[in-house]
Amino acid sequence: MDPRAGAVIASVQLWRGGSTLDLVDVPVPRPAVGEVLVEVRLATVCGSDLHTVLGRRPSPAPSVLGHEAVGTILELGDGPVRYGDGSPAEVGDRIVWGVTVPCGHCDRCLDGRTAKCRTLRKVGHEPFDGDWALSGCYASHVLLPAGATLVRVPDEVPDEVAAPAACATATVAAAVEQAGPMLGREVVVSGAGMLGLVAVAMAAEAGAAGIVVLDPDAGRRATAAAFGATVTGDPRRTTLGEVDVAFELSGAADAVEQLAAALTIGGRLVLAGSVSPGRPVAVDPEQVVRRWATVTGVHNYEPRHLAQAVDFLARTSQLRPWGSLVADPVPLDDLRALLAERVGGPVRTAVRP
Amino acid sequence: MDPRAGAVIASVQLWRGGSTLDLVDVPVPRPAVGEVLVEVRLATVCGSDLHTVLGRRPSPAPSVLGHEAVGTILELGDGPVRYGDGSPAEVGDRIVWGVTVPCGHCDRCLDGRTAKCRTLRKVGHEPFDGDWALSGCYASHVLLPAGATLVRVPDEVPDEVAAPAACATATVAAAVEQAGPMLGREVVVSGAGMLGLVAVAMAAEAGAAGIVVLDPDAGRRATAAAFGATVTGDPRRTTLGEVDVAFELSGAADAVEQLAAALTIGGRLVLAGSVSPGRPVAVDPEQVVRRWATVTGVHNYEPRHLAQAVDFLARTSQLRPWGSLVADPVPLDDLRALLAERVGGPVRTAVRP
Repeated sequence: MDPRAGAVIASVQLWRGGSTLDLVDVPVPRPAVGEVLVEVRLATVCGSDLHTVLGRRPSPAPSVLGHEAVGTILELGDGPVRYGDGSPAEVGDRIVWGVTVPCGHCDRCLDGRTAKCRTLRKVGHEPFDGDWALSGCYASHVLLPAGATLVRVPDEVPDEVAAPAACATATVAAAVEQAGPMLGREVVVSGAGMLGLVAVAMAAEAGAAGIVVLDPDAGRRATAAAFGATVTGDPRRTTLGEVDVAFELSGAADAVEQLAAALTIGGRLVLAGSVSPGRPVAVDPEQVVRRWATVTGVHNYEPRHLAQAVDFLARTSQLRPWGSLVADPVPLDDLRALLAERVGGPVRTAVRP
Repeated sequence: MDPRAGAVIASVQLWRGGSTLDLVDVPVPRPAVGEVLVEVRLATVCGSDLHTVLGRRPSPAPSVLGHEAVGTILELGDGPVRYGDGSPAEVGDRIVWGVTVPCGHCDRCLDGRTAKCRTLRKVGHEPFDGDWALSGCYASHVLLPAGATLVRVPDEVPDEVAAPAACATATVAAAVEQAGPMLGREVVVSGAGMLGLVAVAMAAEAGAAGIVVLDPDAGRRATAAAFGATVTGDPRRTTLGEVDVAFELSGAADAVEQLAAALTIGGRLVLAGSVSPGRPVAVDPEQVVRRWATVTGVHNYEPRHLAQAVDFLARTSQLRPWGSLVADPVPLDDLRALLAERVGGPVRTAVRP
C-alpha cells in the first residue's frame, strides 16, 4: 500500500481502451505540497471523450477519462494553494479546475502559452499507471497537481452549469479573445453544440449586430435562438453575407472553407473545432490579402479564460438557460451508456458520483 | 481650355493600354480647396505597373500610371492642408504621398480601414478622362485631391530612397504591425524584392533572433544579407524550422503553403504578395488550431504606415544601403524601357521628370 495513502478510497471508472470501463476502488494518496484533493460533485461528458472511446482520438489506457467537472475541496497539501486572484483555496470551496497543468517554467509557459507547455499534463488524459493516476473526473475524487488552475464557483452557478466551464466555456472564452471586438459586428457561429451556444451568448453580450448560427441539426438551431442567435440555418442551404467575425466550432472542413470565403474587410475567422485529422482546406490567398482577413486557431486555453468562463456563466445565469443543456446526471456506474454514439438529445450528459 | 487652368503645363506619360505610352503635355488646373499640386522629383517603378502593362492586372486606360514618388509642393489650394501631425503643408516642402485617397466618411473609413474605403481613389490608378486626370507619378506634376496623405521627407532621406516609401515601405509597415512583436523571434521572409528587404530590415530593427530569407534568385539573396538576413536559401531547397513570424511577399502559392506549414505555437503568417488571381492554397485546419496559428493579410496601408515608413527610412539611412536598390533614374521619355519584363537587375528602376 502506498505509504502516502490517506483515509480516502476513490471510486473511479477505469478506461482500459475501446469501450471497456471498470468501476474500481483506489486508495487516495494524501495531497503533497501544492496538491489539492477534490471530491467530484458532477462531471459532464465532453464530445472528445466519445471520440476517444470510439477510437477516433488517441489517449493512454488504462486511464481515468473526464475533464469537465465541478467539485469540493476535501484536503489541501502543504503551502498555500491559491486562486488566480491570489486568495487562498480552502477546504470546502466549490471549484472547477483547468484542463491543462503546465510546468510554468519552459519557454512556452514563460511566453504566456501555458496551454502548449513543453511538458503539459492534462486532466482526464494521463495514464493510470503513471505519476498522476487520479487525473480524470469520471471518479469520486480527483487529485490535482501543484500548478493546476483553480476557480471558485459562485453560488448562483449550479453544478451542471459550472462543470462544462473547464472545457467548452473556457475554450470559447479564448476564441472570443482571438476574435477581437464584436460590438456592432456581423458574427457567424458554425456548430451549435456546447461551444457554439457559448459563442452565441458571448457574441450577444459583446453587442454583435447579428449572430447567424449554422448547424445541420434543426433542434440545435432552435436551441441557439434561446442563446442569442438572430438567424439560424442549415450550412448546406445558407448563403452568408459579409461576415466580420466567424467561429468554426464544428470541425467540418466544408464549414472552414465556407466561413473563410465569407469574411469581409478586416474579417476574422477563429477555428476551434478542427481537433482531429481531416482534409486540408482551400483558401484563396488573394482574398486574404485584399480583405485584410485573418484565420486563426485556439486549442485549450489559458488560466485567465477559465476565470472569464465562470464569471460569464455567473453573469448570464438568469439570462440564458444553461441548465437546460445538461441532462439529469446518472450514477457513475452508468457512465458507459453516456459514452456511446448518439444523435440528437441533450447537448451534454452528466454523471454524479 | 479648362477655366481652372493655371500657368503650369504638365508633361505626362499617358498609358493607353498594352505597352502604348505617349508623352503628352497637359494644362494643370489650379489646386481647388484642400488640393496640392506637386512637382515630381523622382518616381520609382513598382512591379505592379509592370503587371498592368503586361496585361496581368486590370487598370483603366487611358491613365497616368506610377504611384511611388517624391516631389516638391508647388501650389496649395485654399484652406490649410495638413500633415498627419497637424502641422501645415507649405510650398517648397519635399514630400511623399499615400497611394490611397479615401473619402473619410464611409463605414470603412470610420472603422479605421481607409485603405478599403467604399469610394477609394488611388494614385496612378485613375482614368485620365475622369475627374482626377493627373493621378499618376510618371509625370512632371501630380495634382493630389483633398484627403490625400502627405508626409514630409527629412533631408537625410534622398529622393531615390524616399520614393518607394509610398508603396513598398508603407505596405511592409502595415504587415509588420499585423505580425506583432518580433523581439527574440524566428522570422522568415519569402521574396527578397523591395518589400522583402524592407521586411528584413524592420525585423532586424525589432530584434528578431533569426531572419531567414527565401528567394529563388541568388543575387537577391546576397542583397538580403546586407539588410539583416541571418540565413538565406532557395525556397525549393530549404527546410524551415519552427517559425514564429513569416512574411509572404512573393505571391507564390507554394510559398504561402510552405510558410503556413512551418508556423510554430502562436506563429503568425502575414500575406502581402498575393495580389493577383492564383490557385487556392491548402491549409491544415487542425494545425492552425493546435498551434494557435494565425494567417492574415494586408493590402495597401493606413496613413500611419506611410509616416512610419518615412521615419524608418530616416532612422536606417546610414545602416542600410537603401540607395543601392534603385537604379540611376532615366528621363521620363525613356519610361517604356523600364516597363518591360526583366530578370535580375536592380530592385527598383526610376524616372526623373
